[in-house]
Amino acid sequence: MKFTDVIQSADWKAEKHVPVISAPETVKAGEKFNVEVCVGKEIAHPNTTEHHIRWIKLYFKPDNGKFAYELGTYQFDAHGESAEGPNKGPVYSEPAVNAFIKLSASGTLLAAAYCNIHGLWESSKTITVQA
Amino acid sequence: MKFTDVIQSADWKAEKHVPVISAPETVKAGEKFNVEVCVGKEIAHPNTTEHHIRWIKLYFKPDNGKFAYELGTYQFDAHGESAEGPNKGPVYSEPAVNAFIKLSASGTLLAAAYCNIHGLWESSKTITVQA
Amino acid sequence: MKFTDVIQSADWKAEKHVPVISAPETVKAGEKFNVEVCVGKEIAHPNTTEHHIRWIKLYFKPDNGKFAYELGTYQFDAHGESAEGPNKGPVYSEPAVNAFIKLSASGTLLAAAYCNIHGLWESSKTITVQA
Amino acid sequence: MKFTDVIQSADWKAEKHVPVISAPETVKAGEKFNVEVCVGKEIAHPNTTEHHIRWIKLYFKPDNGKFAYELGTYQFDAHGESAEGPNKGPVYSEPAVNAFIKLSASGTLLAAAYCNIHGLWESSKTITVQA
Ligand SMILES: [Fe+3]
Ligand SMILES: [Fe+3]
Ligand SMILES: [Fe+3]
Ligand SMILES: [Fe+3]
Repeated sequence: MKFTDVIQSADWKAEKHVPVISAPETVKAGEKFNVEVCVGKEIAHPNTTEHHIRWIKLYFKPDNGKFAYELGTYQFDAHGESAEGPNKGPVYSEPAVNAFIKLSASGTLLAAAYCNIHGLWESSKTITVQA
Repeated sequence: MKFTDVIQSADWKAEKHVPVISAPETVKAGEKFNVEVCVGKEIAHPNTTEHHIRWIKLYFKPDNGKFAYELGTYQFDAHGESAEGPNKGPVYSEPAVNAFIKLSASGTLLAAAYCNIHGLWESSKTITVQA
Repeated sequence: MKFTDVIQSADWKAEKHVPVISAPETVKAGEKFNVEVCVGKEIAHPNTTEHHIRWIKLYFKPDNGKFAYELGTYQFDAHGESAEGPNKGPVYSEPAVNAFIKLSASGTLLAAAYCNIHGLWESSKTITVQA
Repeated sequence: MKFTDVIQSADWKAEKHVPVISAPETVKAGEKFNVEVCVGKEIAHPNTTEHHIRWIKLYFKPDNGKFAYELGTYQFDAHGESAEGPNKGPVYSEPAVNAFIKLSASGTLLAAAYCNIHGLWESSKTITVQA
């Protein structure tokens, strides 16, 4: 078995688990830019003690390179857990983050997301770097 | 020895390692709001293969509770690493993130940050929740 | 507020949340040795979808150095979560791990552990390195 | 682009990046057992400030289920980093860990590992659970 057998993909407008990558089409080499990664952009995913998005990981695969680089790991750690019982706690982390990246080569951003009961999901987005 | 002996604090305007928490003074109970956590807001911290900020963790301690809840873990995983040698790689992650949180009680946000060669640093910010 | 206000400590034989560090008293410089970190060595901690140990982090503070180095982060990600409902899932991760470390200086190992409803706990253990 | 394009696999006896899963062929339902995951079992992988294994993640896909569950995330955080310069620091984390798991269904263990300059690698191992 391989990860390709368990990492799921779909249209994020129809399937609430798919991570959505929002980034510019084109950026300048070495200039900081913003990437938003989130789950549930169109259809909200549940955020309860029993069912929630644990993390999103963001990678970059340069066009002229063989390997993917890990850019960031964003964990969403609060889902209403509490000593008073599930979903009684005072805090929730939404499965979304804005990150800040610098690139010096064109390539593809890849995101993976993990739901604690529906497993792994992925998406990608190409990005062009101007010298 | 305890963590209090190794978690450092200072004024973030003078010391580049201190995590900075930017959040509203007051939020509405159950309404999503934005928290920015970053290192190097006033004085940039190096971001090289050999020296960089690895992560920021964000916690919340409710005024009426005994324990701190973990809200998020934000890892910055790319620092120019490459098979061509250190600092030759095509991608850097800046040590900053915007996260999205919901609270139902007043309390204190705490952030910890880790520099791979200068260790652990902390800061905090109170936040008031209106019913 | 500081982390010292929210990181709890106690005798691990009486308090089930305290991380226990098992390591040799003395090791040889540069020789790989084993460190076991766990929660619940004497009194088991619950491991349910609603209440569990999320992670243990292990640090090292050299006697002749100012900063703590992070050695490892060990996350326990499965607690019976399932689409069939909480505690119906097929897999549980116990809050224990054996790690492998090399040291070239004497100092103190520090561990932090996080319970999703009872917050942060710590412990430490000195270790002597022979040249 | 999909993760299948960037997660590499190979024979671990010939390729030093491939994670190796050591676990019993058969376990009893609900009984704690040990899983060792490591990189470099046959051919050691470098462990330097510039080139090292960052983490191994372990998953479980039940035969009778659709989704993969995350069991554990094991991060190796120390690679000789130091304020005195790269590879001058007092501590190294080896890319290996023994974890403790309970299963109630047969299935497949999957491991992913990340090298900071050679990207993502995977392997898997089936495991039978006896009632
Ligand atoms: Fe889900
Ligand atoms: Fe630093
Ligand atoms: Fe607890
Ligand atoms: Fe490598």
